Amino acid sequence: MNQNEISIFPLGEDNRTYAKYFIGKSYLKMLSTEQVVVANVTFEPGCRNNWHIHHAQNGGGQILLVTAGKGFYQEYGKLPRELHPGDVINIPAGVKHWHGAAPNSWFAHLAIEVPGTVCSTEWCEPVNEKEYNNLVQED
Amino acid sequence: MNQNEISIFPLGEDNRTYAKYFIGKSYLKMLSTEQVVVANVTFEPGCRNNWHIHHAQNGGGQILLVTAGKGFYQEYGKLPRELHPGDVINIPAGVKHWHGAAPNSWFAHLAIEVPGTVCSTEWCEPVNEKEYNNLVQED
Repeated sequence: MNQNEISIFPLGEDNRTYAKYFIGKSYLKMLSTEQVVVANVTFEPGCRNNWHIHHAQNGGGQILLVTAGKGFYQEYGKLPRELHPGDVINIPAGVKHWHGAAPNSWFAHLAIEVPGTVCSTEWCEPVNEKEYNNLVQED
Repeated sequence: MNQNEISIFPLGEDNRTYAKYFIGKSYLKMLSTEQVVVANVTFEPGCRNNWHIHHAQNGGGQILLVTAGKGFYQEYGKLPRELHPGDVINIPAGVKHWHGAAPNSWFAHLAIEVPGTVCSTEWCEPVNEKEYNNLVQED
């Protein structure tokens, strides 16, 4: 697959800023840096981010809008949710979660940064590799 | 074209709430009604909204993320901008504008409502029909 044809939104550059919090390679393109921050995030097959929490005093969190491929979203203590184009995820501040591609598929989503006060992201441990690799068998 | 295949996001229902401010038929699907309001708006060929202004005391306005087809965005006193999938438009509060499909193409965009205080929308006159119909000849 041509990497530039994964999503209708631009692939952007290697996501170096957050690479240390990801397993595998991802790409980041900022689509809006004013009003509300919106990014296009693209994950190679097998790429996922570590468990993380968006903290905020008020507001905060993220909204994901899936634009291509197949991926997963999981909140801590819950089953992973399989994601396909058109799916929308509201991630409230304070909820520990991860998201990323399926082991055998590219994946892309828009990420809307929900405005808030005193916002920060706490990065935690990687997703358990055995549990992640088992996701491919659930097709 | 199958209407359900215009965009990767759901078509939704006839956009009856705002129909009086549109020329032609549009469809509206709310994708997020918490954190930040996000909608998928789909325009039949020839459909466009009237000139309008998003007012706000602080913040406000809209961000459009084009997902399908061909359309136009125009700010009052400026030339229309042709839109294609992947294009992003930041519409600040206070700017008079319209958006919609090309005369001969379906069109769909996500609309992110930028949070603000004392937000309202002022609907104005329809886009001049002759000027709109001339857009098709600019291909």
